[in-house]
Amino acid sequence: MAVALALSETVRGTTSPNPPVGAVILDAHGHRAGAGATQPPGGPHAEVMALREAGERARGGTAFVTLEPCSHHGRTPPCTDALLDAGIAAVRYAVADPHPQARGGAEVLRAAGVDVRGGLLADEVAAGPLRAWLHSVRTGRPHVTWKYAATLDGRIAAADRTSRWISGPVSRAEVHAIRAAADAVVAGTGTIRADDAWLTVRDAAGALAERQPLRVVVGRGGIPDGARVLDSVAETVHVRTHDPAEVLAVLTDRGVVDVLLEGGPTLAGAFVRARLVDRIVAYVAPALLGDGPAALGPAGVSTITEAHRWRVEGVTMSGEDVRITAVPAVGEGGD
Amino acid sequence: MAVALALSETVRGTTSPNPPVGAVILDAHGHRAGAGATQPPGGPHAEVMALREAGERARGGTAFVTLEPCSHHGRTPPCTDALLDAGIAAVRYAVADPHPQARGGAEVLRAAGVDVRGGLLADEVAAGPLRAWLHSVRTGRPHVTWKYAATLDGRIAAADRTSRWISGPVSRAEVHAIRAAADAVVAGTGTIRADDAWLTVRDAAGALAERQPLRVVVGRGGIPDGARVLDSVAETVHVRTHDPAEVLAVLTDRGVVDVLLEGGPTLAGAFVRARLVDRIVAYVAPALLGDGPAALGPAGVSTITEAHRWRVEGVTMSGEDVRITAVPAVGEGGD
Repeated sequence: MAVALALSETVRGTTSPNPPVGAVILDAHGHRAGAGATQPPGGPHAEVMALREAGERARGGTAFVTLEPCSHHGRTPPCTDALLDAGIAAVRYAVADPHPQARGGAEVLRAAGVDVRGGLLADEVAAGPLRAWLHSVRTGRPHVTWKYAATLDGRIAAADRTSRWISGPVSRAEVHAIRAAADAVVAGTGTIRADDAWLTVRDAAGALAERQPLRVVVGRGGIPDGARVLDSVAETVHVRTHDPAEVLAVLTDRGVVDVLLEGGPTLAGAFVRARLVDRIVAYVAPALLGDGPAALGPAGVSTITEAHRWRVEGVTMSGEDVRITAVPAVGEGGD
Repeated sequence: MAVALALSETVRGTTSPNPPVGAVILDAHGHRAGAGATQPPGGPHAEVMALREAGERARGGTAFVTLEPCSHHGRTPPCTDALLDAGIAAVRYAVADPHPQARGGAEVLRAAGVDVRGGLLADEVAAGPLRAWLHSVRTGRPHVTWKYAATLDGRIAAADRTSRWISGPVSRAEVHAIRAAADAVVAGTGTIRADDAWLTVRDAAGALAERQPLRVVVGRGGIPDGARVLDSVAETVHVRTHDPAEVLAVLTDRGVVDVLLEGGPTLAGAFVRARLVDRIVAYVAPALLGDGPAALGPAGVSTITEAHRWRVEGVTMSGEDVRITAVPAVGEGGD
């Protein structure tokens, strides 16, 4: 299952609105016969990719899948059919499928005599590669990660708005990896105007990745002619609203499941105020500025008892910086 | 030596301008015969306390001391004499004494035939109980720790200046422990006026500790009549300047070695700008405010390349909060 999980990580950002799933087939003797991950929408699911590689060796074998195999006809036939046709004897899956149409695959397989068990590495898969997709099935809207890099004293730029660089090279590389796994990267018109933000995925040498997430610019203001976000490297959508719920509705219609909100403070404040941020990834650099804009603008809080309360999910060093991930505290909205 | 180190921790805040030292005596058979720690100024040093407990059992035994025994006549006779008179056969110490008058104890002991070795747990002692004292010997000024509690977005209070509570109970208890180990707690007149800060050491139930650090109020503004900092719980000094170097000079004259700077942003900015902060202890609470004052006010930085750069020394959870400790990056002043 650990291999299936790792495989599913490699296709994050390429499968939405379908979930990024990984699958491994062992033959009847327990030897690995095939492996695969979900292909882009309309393409085969992970099980089918793994079964194709396994061929006849799948007969009497065991399938490990990070999500309960689907049992419905969508753009592709049910994976349960594919598993049964291949003569798979046992299925192990991590997370049960909550999708109203696709769920129930385990029962279909059991009814056909397959030995089925769920729950293997379920927490790891649910908190990792399937997190955004599970969230979107549950809530009907994309999962939103708000990422920012700030100094110890909470500034995202100096008094003159310069900000290259607040965080170190390790953190900046991580941010590109997070962008690469997202379906869409969102910034406000203010950030586009102030920083000419490009919102692309690059490697350490600055080379553009082959696949780029959708670029989303939010706000009623215009995008300046010649802004980098208007180039042909990736698609860009300008959503002319200040309402985060409207932004997410537009993105839901486009099949977006995993959103990375990259700023600036005004837009982040609007999302926090609307309780539409599901996770924070904060890079805190060991630097002090004493002046300059804060990471978060007005978020509807006027006194301490109204503070938005979060729960720290993880703290690690990221090169010289501290990376803090947080999720809404219980009872604080989000999902 | 670990016991000696733990003993020295218990007397932090009570020994300045002398160093908080711990000592353990083993008898000739390796059994513990005595232990002690530095008494308040004018009282016996750690070695003498431990030797008193050991009595005749010290003869032929080994002394473990966190600092090289002193060899000079100050307000008390040299500890080297006491160790030799007691017939100690071996001495193990952690940190060599850098003090211009007191140093050289190891050589004195060796010349008298004692088996002497230094360096045991030296890093732990130097970074822990002796940190501030070693710093003051090296630089001629007290060691300054700037402590603050802020939200993830860097605010120390909400828009209406309410701040109870940003951080959780575990962090607040830790702050009282840090205060208890300090010689002086420093705040600006602005913080006194705005928050009526008390600057005292209390336990979780609010009861005042027996020993209280010196309270230092900095700034040309007045302290309002009836301010809590003017009560008789502890001594309070009002230093009427905005210059951090002047503040530290006044405190040096008073024998202060270990300073805890508690705010507010204006005073912290002045200390950071003057490069007179030696350590940051930041409690980052998983909360968002989106408005309200930042932890640090103007610190002489106008563009990103002028940012004060620090190095993260440690990151731990403190209850629900993240505690980040940092020291100046190499070449960034401090010491």
